[in-house]
Amino acid sequence: MHSERRPRLTPAIADVRRAVRELLTDRPQQETADGLVLVGLSGGADSLALAAATAFEAPRLGLRAGAVIVDHALQAGSAEVAARAAEQARALGLAPVLVSRVDVVAAGAGNGPEAAARTARYAALEAARAETGATHVLLGHTLDDQAESVLLGLARGSGATSLHGMAPVTGMLLRPLLGIRRETTRQFCEDAGVTPWDDPHNFDQRFARVRVRTSVLPTLEGEIGPGIAEALARTAEQLREDASALDAMVLEMIEEICEPAEAGIAVSVRSLAANPPALRQRIVRYVVESEFGVSLARVHTLAVLRLVTDWHGQGTLDLPGVRVERQDGMLVFSAPGTSPSKGPLPSHGTSRH
Amino acid sequence: MHSERRPRLTPAIADVRRAVRELLTDRPQQETADGLVLVGLSGGADSLALAAATAFEAPRLGLRAGAVIVDHALQAGSAEVAARAAEQARALGLAPVLVSRVDVVAAGAGNGPEAAARTARYAALEAARAETGATHVLLGHTLDDQAESVLLGLARGSGATSLHGMAPVTGMLLRPLLGIRRETTRQFCEDAGVTPWDDPHNFDQRFARVRVRTSVLPTLEGEIGPGIAEALARTAEQLREDASALDAMVLEMIEEICEPAEAGIAVSVRSLAANPPALRQRIVRYVVESEFGVSLARVHTLAVLRLVTDWHGQGTLDLPGVRVERQDGMLVFSAPGTSPSKGPLPSHGTSRH
Repeated sequence: MHSERRPRLTPAIADVRRAVRELLTDRPQQETADGLVLVGLSGGADSLALAAATAFEAPRLGLRAGAVIVDHALQAGSAEVAARAAEQARALGLAPVLVSRVDVVAAGAGNGPEAAARTARYAALEAARAETGATHVLLGHTLDDQAESVLLGLARGSGATSLHGMAPVTGMLLRPLLGIRRETTRQFCEDAGVTPWDDPHNFDQRFARVRVRTSVLPTLEGEIGPGIAEALARTAEQLREDASALDAMVLEMIEEICEPAEAGIAVSVRSLAANPPALRQRIVRYVVESEFGVSLARVHTLAVLRLVTDWHGQGTLDLPGVRVERQDGMLVFSAPGTSPSKGPLPSHGTSRH
Repeated sequence: MHSERRPRLTPAIADVRRAVRELLTDRPQQETADGLVLVGLSGGADSLALAAATAFEAPRLGLRAGAVIVDHALQAGSAEVAARAAEQARALGLAPVLVSRVDVVAAGAGNGPEAAARTARYAALEAARAETGATHVLLGHTLDDQAESVLLGLARGSGATSLHGMAPVTGMLLRPLLGIRRETTRQFCEDAGVTPWDDPHNFDQRFARVRVRTSVLPTLEGEIGPGIAEALARTAEQLREDASALDAMVLEMIEEICEPAEAGIAVSVRSLAANPPALRQRIVRYVVESEFGVSLARVHTLAVLRLVTDWHGQGTLDLPGVRVERQDGMLVFSAPGTSPSKGPLPSHGTSRH
């Protein structure tokens, strides 16, 4: 039995175990007697190291640890890969061990194969968590995955939000290995005598993430210096903190500066002007997102704010999914179909068209 | 005379001129009758396009425009290059035209040739501005330069600050072309019939910036999609706004939560705890920077904050350039040589060592 062999405590094993221990220790749910956590296991080096470290640490924290293996059924032999991972999980002493076969094609029509697989995977993980009554699902994303996410976010170019990468805690999901290099998880497996599975998809250049891993990051490391993956991960962490502080401020003030308007919502121009650009923009984006379900592009947010900072009697601004008009010291946001300027304030509407 | 030829208004010429006009129009100093602005001219496509556009726009805004050429004297023939640029500036109608020869080697002992050249250049630009009484110096940094700065900042890995890139307005310096692609300035020169100088340093792979331009950015564009330079520039802009909002909040509250302490300064633990991590960290960094002239690394800032969020009676924290101790609900910051715990509060000091 694997579980009975005691691997020597090498640096890689110590690092991964410590990362798991620290994140599990922080959870309030550890108080729950007989608490269960699940490891999301693919059989790759990162999640296999995570599974082994969790099997070791969880009992010492008064937790039970199980595993869930998601079979995406996208490659020939995927059922065998899943079965082998399940066997490894059981050998590590994890219980229960669930295998969940998902239909990726049905999950994500039109968003590309990577997004579809991700959607299907997260749904399956949550289903397994609910089914077993587990408090959390642990995922094996490493510092390298984080760096790749930041670079992919840069390419999407949706501003700072795209650079936040993954959070260590997202609801029920825990990512203890975000500070651990992928290489360390591979070393863990070697030191612990467990054999990871190499997903051929990890070498398939059709995937943007694979190209980032095999080409972009090595170019960055080679041309502008080593330590770039760590730098990207550190940056992501700080940006998440900054954004969370600014978002909290917006939430604190939003009630005060908004009021219902005919066919929409109105925000005080004076309050917007009194805030720095970073908060102004977040207020506008928050209002539009929460009222109309539309995520404004930066260029459109800035256009809205010119009604505040560069006011010279402009007319209605028609943006994708929302229209915005300045009336009596308020920015009035309404759905595209409506026409507030033809409503109860015709004189204002007319004079500004 | 070049200045008498009227170039056709092509898209490239229109774009560059508009960018110059918009940034100059925003300056309060435009009110100054007879205001003078200087263009920092290297003779390269970016600054040459800037010079030509400024020569056109400035008089229409009631401004005079001159030029300053900095001869770094790092390459053979640099004096001739500077003389040719000066001649081009005069042909464009710019006046006065200054050539400033600087000693790069003396300017930057130990910080590498790029930093030394930059330090010498900015000192020479400021000297020229002061000498001529100009209100501003315009610089030809483009969107591509901005994207390169962000990537170089990522490599330095000093967190979000390193991603801010260059601001359009920094004191007396204006950078009107941060939204313009380098290619557009080259097209401007072709359309306007002015011949830029190609600095051989722009192709010298010893410079990190050159490697970013010739290898890193093309790899990013090729592997994760076009538009990456624009995305990087957009990100830099948003991060600057976010940081500036957070910095303003720290400045607003700093007086209230700090008080002088023996041999240093003390910050209320309760106030730190009441703020989100992004603000807490900025408060600590601000206090250490302004009191002791030390820029704390993120890892050290986080160590200081564990005295707030993870307090279990730790002793004095000795960091590079500052020591920190928790005493009576305050974090006490002092210079490394001093020893507050041996001062007037011996009982506290002893019990925590």
